[in-house]
Formats: sequence, C-alpha cells, structure tokens
Amino acid sequence: MAKYVYFFGDGKAEGNGKMKDELGGKGAGLAEMTNAGLPVPPGFTISTEACREYFRLGGKVSKEVEEQTRENLNKLEQLQGHKLGGADNPLLVSVRSGAKFSMPGMMDTILNLGLNDKTVEGLARLTGNPRFAYDSYRRLIQMYGSVVLEIPKSSFEHVFDGKKKQRKVKLDTDLTAKDLQEVIAEYKKVVKKAVGKEFPQEAYEQLQGARDAVFRSWFNDRAKHYRRLNGISDEIGTAVNVQAMVFGNMGENSGTGVGFTRNPATGEREFYGEFLMNAQGEDVVAGIRTPVHISELHKLLPDVYNQLRDITSRLEKHYRDMQDFEFTIQDGRLYMLQTRNGKRTGRAALKVSMDMVEEGLINKEEAIFRVDANQIYELLFPRFDPKALKSVDPLAKGLPASPGAAVGQVVFTAEAAVKWHQAKKGAVMLVRGETTPEDIRGMEVAAGILTSRGGMTSHAAVVTRGMGKCCVAGASSIEVDEHKKELRIGKKVFKEGDWLSIDGSTGNVYGGQLATVPADPNDPMLVEFMSWAEPHRKLGVRANADIPRDAKAARAFGAEGIGLCRTEHMFFGEGKIEHMRAMILADDEKSRRAALKKLLPLQRKDFAGIFEVMDGFPVTIRTLDPPLHEFLPQREQLMVDVERLQLAKGSEKRKVAADIKKRYADYGITEIKGLQTLLRRVQDLHELNPMLGLRGCRLGILYPEITEMQVRAIFEAAVLVAKKGKKVKPEIMIPLVGTPKELALQKEIVERVAREVLGDNKQKIEYLVGTMIELPRAALVAGEIAQEAQFFSFGTNDLTQTTYGFSRDDIGKILPVYLEQGVLKKDPFATLDQTGVGKLVQMATEAGRKTRPDLKVGICGEHGGDPASVEFCFKTGLNYVSCSPYRVITARLAAAQAGLAAASAGKAAEAGRTV
Amino acid sequence: MAKYVYFFGDGKAEGNGKMKDELGGKGAGLAEMTNAGLPVPPGFTISTEACREYFRLGGKVSKEVEEQTRENLNKLEQLQGHKLGGADNPLLVSVRSGAKFSMPGMMDTILNLGLNDKTVEGLARLTGNPRFAYDSYRRLIQMYGSVVLEIPKSSFEHVFDGKKKQRKVKLDTDLTAKDLQEVIAEYKKVVKKAVGKEFPQEAYEQLQGARDAVFRSWFNDRAKHYRRLNGISDEIGTAVNVQAMVFGNMGENSGTGVGFTRNPATGEREFYGEFLMNAQGEDVVAGIRTPVHISELHKLLPDVYNQLRDITSRLEKHYRDMQDFEFTIQDGRLYMLQTRNGKRTGRAALKVSMDMVEEGLINKEEAIFRVDANQIYELLFPRFDPKALKSVDPLAKGLPASPGAAVGQVVFTAEAAVKWHQAKKGAVMLVRGETTPEDIRGMEVAAGILTSRGGMTSHAAVVTRGMGKCCVAGASSIEVDEHKKELRIGKKVFKEGDWLSIDGSTGNVYGGQLATVPADPNDPMLVEFMSWAEPHRKLGVRANADIPRDAKAARAFGAEGIGLCRTEHMFFGEGKIEHMRAMILADDEKSRRAALKKLLPLQRKDFAGIFEVMDGFPVTIRTLDPPLHEFLPQREQLMVDVERLQLAKGSEKRKVAADIKKRYADYGITEIKGLQTLLRRVQDLHELNPMLGLRGCRLGILYPEITEMQVRAIFEAAVLVAKKGKKVKPEIMIPLVGTPKELALQKEIVERVAREVLGDNKQKIEYLVGTMIELPRAALVAGEIAQEAQFFSFGTNDLTQTTYGFSRDDIGKILPVYLEQGVLKKDPFATLDQTGVGKLVQMATEAGRKTRPDLKVGICGEHGGDPASVEFCFKTGLNYVSCSPYRVITARLAAAQAGLAAASAGKAAEAGRTV
Repeated sequence: MAKYVYFFGDGKAEGNGKMKDELGGKGAGLAEMTNAGLPVPPGFTISTEACREYFRLGGKVSKEVEEQTRENLNKLEQLQGHKLGGADNPLLVSVRSGAKFSMPGMMDTILNLGLNDKTVEGLARLTGNPRFAYDSYRRLIQMYGSVVLEIPKSSFEHVFDGKKKQRKVKLDTDLTAKDLQEVIAEYKKVVKKAVGKEFPQEAYEQLQGARDAVFRSWFNDRAKHYRRLNGISDEIGTAVNVQAMVFGNMGENSGTGVGFTRNPATGEREFYGEFLMNAQGEDVVAGIRTPVHISELHKLLPDVYNQLRDITSRLEKHYRDMQDFEFTIQDGRLYMLQTRNGKRTGRAALKVSMDMVEEGLINKEEAIFRVDANQIYELLFPRFDPKALKSVDPLAKGLPASPGAAVGQVVFTAEAAVKWHQAKKGAVMLVRGETTPEDIRGMEVAAGILTSRGGMTSHAAVVTRGMGKCCVAGASSIEVDEHKKELRIGKKVFKEGDWLSIDGSTGNVYGGQLATVPADPNDPMLVEFMSWAEPHRKLGVRANADIPRDAKAARAFGAEGIGLCRTEHMFFGEGKIEHMRAMILADDEKSRRAALKKLLPLQRKDFAGIFEVMDGFPVTIRTLDPPLHEFLPQREQLMVDVERLQLAKGSEKRKVAADIKKRYADYGITEIKGLQTLLRRVQDLHELNPMLGLRGCRLGILYPEITEMQVRAIFEAAVLVAKKGKKVKPEIMIPLVGTPKELALQKEIVERVAREVLGDNKQKIEYLVGTMIELPRAALVAGEIAQEAQFFSFGTNDLTQTTYGFSRDDIGKILPVYLEQGVLKKDPFATLDQTGVGKLVQMATEAGRKTRPDLKVGICGEHGGDPASVEFCFKTGLNYVSCSPYRVITARLAAAQAGLAAASAGKAAEAGRTV
Repeated sequence: MAKYVYFFGDGKAEGNGKMKDELGGKGAGLAEMTNAGLPVPPGFTISTEACREYFRLGGKVSKEVEEQTRENLNKLEQLQGHKLGGADNPLLVSVRSGAKFSMPGMMDTILNLGLNDKTVEGLARLTGNPRFAYDSYRRLIQMYGSVVLEIPKSSFEHVFDGKKKQRKVKLDTDLTAKDLQEVIAEYKKVVKKAVGKEFPQEAYEQLQGARDAVFRSWFNDRAKHYRRLNGISDEIGTAVNVQAMVFGNMGENSGTGVGFTRNPATGEREFYGEFLMNAQGEDVVAGIRTPVHISELHKLLPDVYNQLRDITSRLEKHYRDMQDFEFTIQDGRLYMLQTRNGKRTGRAALKVSMDMVEEGLINKEEAIFRVDANQIYELLFPRFDPKALKSVDPLAKGLPASPGAAVGQVVFTAEAAVKWHQAKKGAVMLVRGETTPEDIRGMEVAAGILTSRGGMTSHAAVVTRGMGKCCVAGASSIEVDEHKKELRIGKKVFKEGDWLSIDGSTGNVYGGQLATVPADPNDPMLVEFMSWAEPHRKLGVRANADIPRDAKAARAFGAEGIGLCRTEHMFFGEGKIEHMRAMILADDEKSRRAALKKLLPLQRKDFAGIFEVMDGFPVTIRTLDPPLHEFLPQREQLMVDVERLQLAKGSEKRKVAADIKKRYADYGITEIKGLQTLLRRVQDLHELNPMLGLRGCRLGILYPEITEMQVRAIFEAAVLVAKKGKKVKPEIMIPLVGTPKELALQKEIVERVAREVLGDNKQKIEYLVGTMIELPRAALVAGEIAQEAQFFSFGTNDLTQTTYGFSRDDIGKILPVYLEQGVLKKDPFATLDQTGVGKLVQMATEAGRKTRPDLKVGICGEHGGDPASVEFCFKTGLNYVSCSPYRVITARLAAAQAGLAAASAGKAAEAGRTV
C-alpha cells in the first residue's frame, strides 16, 4: 500500500527535510527538526499525493488515506497519552496546510481541533482556566464554521460583537467565561441555521472536515492567484499537517513568535523577530496586534531566549541558509512550529549569500544560485533624491518592511487600487490598517504599501518583500479610516487621490511627490557579486534603447550593445511629429520625399547620439515598424468632432470650434472641410487588425523612400561619429519579414544608400543587414531568409501574438481566466512559451545556421529580461538576449546561472562517463 | 556556345513543338508546323533564355545572342533571296513575342520591320502598289515609335487624324499614297522631337530595337497583371519570333484570319473562325472591324479554304487537341502563322475531351486532365430562369462569346467598373465598343462584358472565356457612347448604373435584372465525365454549408458530408439576433442563460434541418467563433449618435431622435441614457485586433453556457432526426484552439451534455469531438492536441492570417504591390502557401497521426476549393477537403487528377524499378 501519511514526534520522523515534494515545505521542516532533536510538538503530515488523489477522485479521500490518518492519529494519541475527543484529558490538534512552496496566508488553518461540549470542560479542568478553554472552543467553532462549513465570518462576528455590546465592553478579553459560554451557544445556533446540522461533536469528524477543507483550499481564489503571480503549478497540491496543539495563550508565561536568523530586508547578520506574550499563533502573522521585538524576550524569559537563539543558529547551519521560523512558548517551555528558508529582498539575498561565502557555509558557485535573477532587479530600484530629502521632514515613521522608494496616490482598498490602475490614473499607494490575503490583487498594482498595524513579519511585509515592492508597515502614528477614506497623520488629512511618498528602506512617510533618482549601478556589493557570476556567462546581453540616455544607462548596467533601437520613437516629439504627419498625409512620392527630407537631419542627430554612447559596441537599428495611423489623430475622435462641428449652434458652436482648433492645431485645421479631409485620410489608413496590417517592412516596400531616408540618416550619423575616432557598428534590422524577397528588396536599398553615403565620405564602416523573426512564416522559412540575412533577432512579442493568435492589447480579459483554468501556466508575454513559440525559435535558429553557419542570432522581445526565457535562449544556442536597460543585470545573472548549471551538468555527465 | 536562336523554314526547323520552355508557345508551334511541311513563313525564334539573360544583365543583350541573331538573319536572307534593308527587293519581317503560356494581346508586336526611306520605294516597285508600301511604312514608324521608342500613340494619331481632316476624308483607306508620304514625313518629325534622334533607317538597328522592346514588354503592367491573374511566374520570360512578313493587305486576293478546329464556346465539332480580306493580321484580333465567318472563305477562295481545313485538321490530329490558328493569304497563297491549343470554356473543354475519347484521339485518363478543375466550375454558373425569359424579349443580339448569365449595372470604362466594385455598389456590367488589354482589371471585377464590335475571337471573347466570365460580343445593333456614358438600344437609353442582363450562351441582351436559376448538377455530360474521374479520387470532398438549402446543393454536387457548419450564421435574422444581443448584453450568467434558452429551440431547428438533408453523411459543426461585437451596432456609429443626440437642438433634435429610435429599435432605445449604456457595453467589447481577440473557444471558456446551449441544440436535433430513422453523424469542432487544455475544457462540456441529452432520450448517436487547427501554435503542439481531438480540420484562412501576419481584411493595399514586386507569387488566401502555411499543415498532420493513427484530418478554409491546394492536401495525406457547395465539383475533379497523377507517377516508378 502506498504511504500517504508520515509521522513525526519523540525525536524521530518518518520523513525528512528533503521530502518537500511529498510533505510540503512545512511538513519537511517539521520532520527535519524532529529528527534533529528539536522541541517540536508531535504530529503527522498527510502528503501532497493524498491531495492530488483527492482531486482526482473528484473531491473524495481514498480508503487508504482515511485508514492511514486514523492509524497515525492513534499513534499520536498513544505518544501524548491523550485521546482526541477524550473527555478528561483531551488531545487537541492544529490542522495546517503546507505546499512545496511557501504561500504565506494563502490557505486555511484550523486550531484547537478536538474541542466539543465535553472536552471543553476537560480542558477547563486541566488548565484550571475555564475562560481560556471556552475562548479556544468558540475560536474553533468560528474557524471551523467559516473554513470547513463555509459560513460567512460576519455571521459569527455579529454574535460576538453583540455580546460585547450587551456587556458594554470594548476588548475581546473583557468577556468572561460565562459570556463566552453564551457566545458558544449562539455560535452553535448559527451553524445549525446555516447548514442544517449541528456543529460536529465527534472529534474525528472534525479532523476529517478540516483535512478536506485544507485540500479544497488549494483551489481557493487567493491561493490560485498567488500561484499565478509566483508561477507555481496548480498540479502539485498541498500537504496537511496535523499537530498536537501547544498554547501560547495559556497565561503570562506563554507566548508565540516568528523570526528570521538574519534581517530579511537588508541581509544583516542580526537575530531578527517578533513575539507576543499570551497570544495564539496566527495573531502575530495576521498583523492585528503589533508585536514586540525578539530582544525583549531576553528580558522576560532569558533561558527560552537563549535556547531559541541556539536552536535557530543550528537550523541555519543545518540548512545552510537563512531561516524563517515560528515558535510557541507554553507555560515557559519552547516549541518550534516551523522552519524554512526565509523570503528576503534582493539586497538581503545578495548580502546573505555573500556573507555565507565569507563564513564558509557555502561556496561562490552556490552563492550565485542563491540570488534570484528577477530579484536582483530590486537593487536598481530608484531611491529618493538626497537633495529632495534634505528639504522635507517625514510625517511619520513605520517599519522598513520592504525597501525602495514609492510615490503614489492614496487609495484605501485593494479594489480601488485595481480600479485606478485599470483606468490608468497613475501610480497608487495602498494605505491599509493591515493587509490580508484578499488584498493581493491591489498590492500587485500599487506602487507601494503603507500599513498602520503589523510588524516586519506581517502579511504586508512578507508579501511585498516577495514581490520586490516597497512597503512601510506598522506606522502606528498614522490613522487609517477606510470607511471615511481618510488617512490622518497628526493634523494632516489625506484623501483618496492625494500624493504620498514612502521609503521602504528607512520606514519614513512623506507627504506629496518626492523626486527619485535611479539606483547606483556601481553599488560595490552588486559589482563584486556580478564579478563572481560573469565568468560563467556565455550568452551575450544587450539592451533595447531608443535614445542616448537609455543607451548610457544600458552601458552602465553592462550591456554589450543595443539589441533593438526603435526608430519610430524618434518621430514623436515637437519638431518631428509634424514632418512625420506631413509625410503620411502626402498625396504623392514627391511631397512624401519633401517631408522625409526634413526628418533626415533629426534622425541623423538621434543616431549619432546613440553611436557615440555605444562606441565600440554594435547597435541594432530597426527601420520604421508601426502602422502609420499611430501618428495621426484617433479616427473615432475625428468622426465625433466632424459631427459636433456640424451640429453645434450659437455659443456652443464657438466653444466646439475653439476646442477643435486647439486639438488639431498641428494640422492648422479651423473648419469643417479640413477636418473632413483629415478624417478621409485617417479612414484610408484605418485597418481592422492593425497588428496584421500595413506595418514593418511592408511600409518600406510600399514607400521605399522611408527606408531610404532612415538608412541615409544611419550612415550619415555613422560617418559623423566615426570621424570623431569612435568605432561605429550599425546592424540594420528589417522588421516583419515573412518572405526572403521582402528582406532582399529592403536590403537592396540599404546597400545602395550605404554605398552612396560611405562612398561620398570616403569612409569605411562595417555594418550588417538582418531581420527580425517575428512571424511564424519567417521562422518556417528561416533557412531561405538566412540567405539574405546576416543576423536574426527574434521579436518574441509579435511572434507570441501571431503564434498564439493573441493580441497583446486585447488579452486582458482572457488571461485571468486562462491562468485560473490552467489553460496557460504563465503569461506568454512575460515568459516565453517554450513549447510553441520556443519551437519556432529553435527551428529557425537551426535552419538559419544551416544556411549561414556564422549567423548571429539574438532575441529582442520583452522575454530577453525574463530569467526562464534567458535560460531557454542559452540552451537554444542564441548569441545574445536584449532587454530593457534596467533588466540587463537580471539577464546577465540569469545567463550566468544558466551557464553555470550547464557546466555543472556537463561535469556531472563527464563524471558519469568515467565511472 | 549555348544555343539561343532557333531557325525554321524550308520544311525544317531546329526546334520542335515540345520546346515550349525554350521557344515559347508560338515559337514551338511554328517549328512544329514547319517540320510538318506546312506553309509557314520562315524565320527564327530567339529563346526565352535570351530574355532571362537580358534581365540578368540589367537590360542588355549578350554578345552570343547578338551574334546568333545576325547569323540567323543571314540564313533567312539567303533562304528568301532578299536582304533586310535591301533597297530593291527588301526582306520585311515581323517581330512577335511568345511566352510558354499564351497571353493574348499582352505583349507588343511590330510588323513591316525592314522598311525605311529606301526600301519603301523598293516595296512599292515590287508590289506595284505604292499606297500599300507607304501605308506599311507609316504603320511601322507608328508601331516602332510607340513600342520601342515609347512615344505616346496619341502623338501619331494626332498627325494622322489631322491629315484626314485636311483631306476631308473619313476612312483611313481614303488617304492616297501621297497623303501617306506626307504622314510619314510628319511621323519622322514626331520621332525626332520626342527622342532627339531620327527614326532608324538602318534595318538591323530596327530589328535590335524591336527585339529588346519585346523582351522589355515582359514586364509591362498588362503582362504582369495578366500573369498575376493566371498564376504565371514572372521568371519564365518570353521568346521573340522574327518571321518573314506575308501580307494579307496586298489586295482582294489577300486576307487574314483566325480560327478554331472546334467551337471554343460549346465544344461542338464545327470548323470555326473568322477572316477579313485585304487586312493585316492584328486587325482581326483587335476587334476593330467585325470579321466574316470562315465559311464565307469557301465561296471566295475554295482552294485556299480546302487547304486550310485540311491543314488544321492535320494539326488537330497531330497535337491531339483543339487548335487555335492564325493564317494569312497573300495574293491567293495560304500561310500558317500560328497554331496552339485553343482556349475554351469549361463546357467546351468537357465536350472536346469527351468527343476526342470517342474519336479515339485520346484515352479517358488523358481526357480527365484536359479539363481544368477551376473551369468545370463554369458549368455550374446560373442560367436565366426559363420562366423569366418567357415574359421578356431580348433588346439586342450579339455573339455568344462566353457562356453564362450575367446581371449588372452598366458602366462604360474599366476604371468605373473597378471603382464601383471597390465601393461595393453591387454587380456591374462592363459595356464597351471593344475591349483592349488595358481593360483587364475592369473585366475581372465585372459580372459580364458586352461589346458592340469584335467577333468570337476578339479580345473580349478570348479573355472572358479564359476567365470563365459571361460575355456577349459584337452586338452591332447597340450603340455605345463612352463619352456621354450612354448605351442606346433602339429607342432605349441606358445610363451608368442602369441594370442590364446578358446571356453569354445565346448572345441575347435584356434590359433590367432577369432572375437566374442555379445550374443543373445533373447535366448528363458532366455526370458522365465525373464518372470517369471519380474512381481515381482518393481524397474525400465535403462542403461548407450553414443552412439546409446549401447542404442540399452540396449533396447534389456530390459532397460527402459537411466539413464546416458555421453556427454563428444561425444567429442572424429576425427572431434570433435579438436573443443573441440580449445574451451579449447580459450582466451575469443568469440573464445570459435566460437569453440562451430562447436561442436553443431556434438552433435546434437549424441543426435538425441540416442533419435531415445530410442523412448518413458526417456534419462538422463549429461552435461559436466570431467576436461578440460583430452582433452589436458599430462602435463609431454609437459614438457619433451619442454626440448628435446631445448637441442637436429644436427641430434638428426631433429628427435625430427619430433617426436614433429607428436605428436602435431592436434595443428599445429612445433616449441618451440607454444609448450611453449600450455604447459602454460596446466599448467594453471593443478590441484593437479582434482577429486576435476574444473569439473561438476563448468565448466558450469564458462563457461555458454558450457552448453548453449549442451542444444541447446539436444533440437534441440529432435525437429528433435519428428518431425519424435517419442516420446522424455529428462532428463537433472547437475553433481557435492553441493548447490541448482549451480543447479538453470544451470537450468536457460536449461530453457531459451529450450524456445528458442522449441519456434522457435513450438514444445512441455516434459523434466525434475535434478541433480546427488555425493557429500556428496549434500546429506546433498538434501531437498533444491529438490526445484530445478525434479529428483536425485545418482552418487555413485563419492559419494563413496568423502565419503570415496578414489580416485578410487589410491586405488589399499590400497585395497588389507584393504581387507586382514578386514578394508573393499568388494571393495566399486563394492558393495555399505550401512553403510556410503548408509546412505547418504537414507538421501537424504528421504529429497528430503519430499520437492518434486514426485521426481524421481535413481542411475547411477557402483553399479547399482551389485545385493546387487540393493536390497539396492529397499529397499531405489529408482525409478530405471541404469547400463551398459550388466548388465541390472542382474539388472532386482536382482530387481525381491528383490521384491519377500520383498513380501514374507510381506506375512510372514501378516500371523504372523493374528495368
């Protein structure tokens, strides 16, 4: 019979720390700690396989799992000498979820399980504390009622608040044992009314219900959303940990806490944690009471404190990584409830891994893998401009829960955050008393999070650190009135939409919009860490940059060239867009050429700036790509304006005319005829599916004079810069090619103009002509295209659009449902779809190199800055990836990690071969 | 040295009839006729290779070609005993183009070459006919001037018309020899003025110029357009035929004519042709004078007539196909100028090939290939309803030049035809005095062509027969005033836009719009011919049909099932669209379901109708595919209407309100609020690229209740029809699948609903669930998709759109340029792109069958009715193609031809192996 349930207790566990797949992170940690002889309340873990089976069976537990649950419960009862549901000396257990990957607060927990009308009396007698016993029982009914029986929490809160009102008390703790007995009676009525059955008095039935509810919680909305956000598969399932209860709320010698072996925000080597005396576990994490710093424990219970320090430092050595732990003190005795590798900020990850190398805990190669390439990006977050800071005083100070500087408009609910985000109203700052897992969506879209309650390990703090998002938590001097939508700090009142700035590295809160400055790419720690990683990188990294400023940033971050310079961005802006519009509205080639002639010197200047910055590095310049209507006014607006101008009368007419004169000032339009003519041209250019329309090289083939002007600007700029003694390496890239002939036609122009310009200037400039592979057909006929192309650059944004048939602009409605239903594992525009789009990349690379062995191959879609995609590009044999300047370090690290992993795998294979 | 020039003459030719690749059709025919001992004026053919080389060298003739031209000219001079440019007894030659494929009137011809100021005198003396000599010379200058020197024809016409005016004569023939001498002097001035050089007096220089001009004419607009229309490659080039002149205009014993060995419109075995006495060659073909029926020649020159009949019937036997020939009679002596396989209508192709089998000229298998699968389609053209014909009298009668019935609105120029077509103003009838090659674009878009001049071999007649388009030519009783835009028939006057009906099978012309009826699919000739072809067909043929009427037609044409039933078409129409709209505008699932409930019985009825018609045959039903906004009012219109309703004042306001009330009657909207709400919903559904948006299975996954309703309607209909004793075979097709999971999710619904409906009715119905492969990704992961799919149907319309990145709706501006520039050889939406899209089809078929060896694979895009694509599908191993009902016979014949060709190739290989 397959083993589904694993026992731990009495210094011995059936599982161990490596069995995260089977036992989940928490279960594996409990087994490992038990085996290490640490004080862990005994219990058993029902495996993730049992969970998967539960869903396979359509929401039913198999006979085997049921049997093994009972057997292990018996074993636990024997070990503890109590019986679950035993009237005199009842065993109480907690039931907790625990998946392979930590999902803080995402799934449901039930405590105090085993209490019923009889055992509650036994507990009261045993502890001599009836109030504690009744409080535990009413908590059980409440948790069980909402989690297992799915009764709205408010039904219970209504009863509880009613009782407090009746007794005219404010705090929960002011209710007496008798009051709580009455609450229990009411709670039971609530249950009966809601589900038509009594609250289960049978303790094992409670256990079954709780276990199955934990299984089911795997697919609740919060859990699914969290997995989606973190790229965790729906298929792995959660384990269920059943553990003998220990009570942190049994009196003044009891308590509960959480901590880290190092500072998870900075990585500093400091014992770091928080606790609450006389409190139950979840109170700390949920952020309802602001807990006390761990150092205070030393004063209260020095022995326990020393034991905890000793245990946790052993755990860190054991796991060779910073630990995040939970503990409970029951009547002066320490119990460890959880240990796991702690979540940390990018900066902390860097610091911890580098310190651990120094400490001899890990080697440099291990250190390289310890830093998530996505997270290192955080080190490049902007900080507040020191000059700006000088002139302002903080309004308040909270905990520096997650570093960075954030500026946003205040909103008070997650829903509001999402709404503002969707309406594109600019950055928002989510301000809450505390955050709960329900707030995840709002946190995702907020620039920063500010809470008035909760500590460094509160929900807000943990989740934002995982997201790499700025957070100030527990700023207790601020007052958040979510009802009135007001944030009060001293005498100042902030309403929804007011600007606020927070510094997640200091905990300072400022009014208004503070100026930020970019991070320092020469951060010494970062520079050293990258110097360890770089030798392992075999894949080139370039940046996408359209202007000299971005190119400068890219070089600072270590980019080895420009992989994509989008020339259309150069056409916007004053003094340029007018000529572009004149070009588009021209009736014939002659007037088109006249307009282009005016654009030529402007483009030349832009190119020269970039060439200068990139001295010695290649610069890939893409010819005009977007459809022309993007440069003109919106068609719908024009249609409405024509109508308005025709219908408006009297004073209304003057208003409309003024309005229109202003809107179309660039076109010098004042009356209806001009507007109608413009509308006609815009209608001419209108396309039903512009993504699949007249753009890319299609433009250059229909209007060769555009390509001609652009190429002339490139080469004239190249000559200018080369004459200054700099090395210029232009790589001209023709977009949206689907057939070899398209490239050949455009290449003809490039080569002719290059000959003309270089010949006139008697200048030799080496250049390449290549193409973007961004249509499936291009990938399919890549072998033929390579006859014309000296390089390929995969435009994986467009390639994903056409391969999947998804418009990037329109996927918004589909994506959430598709992720939820498991149709997509990840957003294919964020992480390359290796099965489909990746197959085309592979095919095209192979076919292209077969035709032209020295074909240079890169990628310039958004995927170039995504670590998983970078690894794929390395494995596929690409020469380089190109990404936005701020992602260059991420790409460099991801490439180094991929190179190192491959080398290690190679060594392993080598070793295998010699055996 | 490579051979570029091939001599023919004196009963012997260096080439032969099989060398069409090298000599072009005309050159090969001349060689073959010469070898057969027929009276052919001697000459030589400069090969197509010389033409290709000319373009490779950037528009220059190589030394080899020049040398061989000179050598062959010498040979011709020796044979004829005249010298080109010889003053006394000059050799005159014609220079004609001739590509592998006949391109009537597409390229330029020059006659009378060799005439100059001296030789013209020699010719005058020799023929004793100075007028003839001077007329020939002025024609040469005119042709050479316009074709070689590119001087506008009008410059010459101006001189010529001026002379006629001066002489106060109407007819060309009224000008005297002296007049013509003056015209010549003027013409030479025109040349000098236009090109700055004298008209070349050196005869060999004339020949060089003419030869090169013919080469260049390969790329003139008419020729390119014709090739594009007929799928002829730009790369094959044209040959140049230089031939000793014979004159049909040397007097009353001279003449020229063209003919066919059988009737090219009906295929009847009748000697068929036209001639003009005392006329030069091109006069007949150009349709300027209406020629005389060939039988008249028997009366005039019985010997020549008999000789011609004898020769042409020998030619037909020799070539084993109907011949199209040209001849000239010079002073009573017959010369053959050309023979080639004659173009014919679909009906004639059928009749000729079947008759030839009966005559023992060819066998049945050859006969099958003699009919173009595209052309057989013409047999299914509608005819006028016999009932309608009873009540009207024809207004005029012309020649039945190309069969069929056409109804259209009169236009008088090709440009107008194109304009009306682009503006989607409905069918047009192009009415011209005569057509010229410049009219091709207009002829293409017209429903039919009516001319007042020209015979059965006029430009209009030949070209329309090739296009399969209805034409009545030479209706001499009608008066076409292109200037006034009037067609006068007796007292009736038709203006642009008036309706006209013509019968290309009888030559009758009717006023107004006559009713048509579909063709008879049981045409006995067609049935017999198809009975020869069918045994060779291994590929299934189905039809795309959405309504019972189309399904009925499909079965009549031999479809073996429905390959695509588009359910969305069922949602349009009164009593349906309202519910569909209510469904789309519903705020929640509940109201959506309520609307769907009303659609259910309507869909069920439609499905039942189709199942009944298709008794025993499979019916592939696609679930809802298009984006929902297609069912709602246009967004732009709504925006404008909202603006109008807000701005209009007073009486204007009442008008606008009434207008809006009417337009949105379906929505019961009368005031601004309702309109704004509707606009908001439409805005919600708006997508930037709807082709890549929320459609296909994405709809069914976001709104499973839609799929549920549709599947319920299918199975309830199936049960209904099955209970009547009919065999129902539903194949449910899920559109726009890109991942296996999408199909799995929709399949779950199909299977659940099927279980429910069939279970409730205790009915067993076999059904399949499959998918359209219409996204590149689907093709790339076809192996995994096949785990879920029982069949694939390639939706090659969408697959072409995404593979190429071409929106079918927006390609209009790009396609003409791309065809012209040679980027595309054919419209990829008409003929499957085998290199790119076809590669995906192959990959997917292979991968799908690997997973599921019995996977049924078909194609249901427009390509299913295109012969070349059908052949590709057969070779790729598809099970069937599906096309529109009227293309079923085309697909059946194309499939039979492909099967037969493969079997022959197989036999040949087999034979090869035994050797």
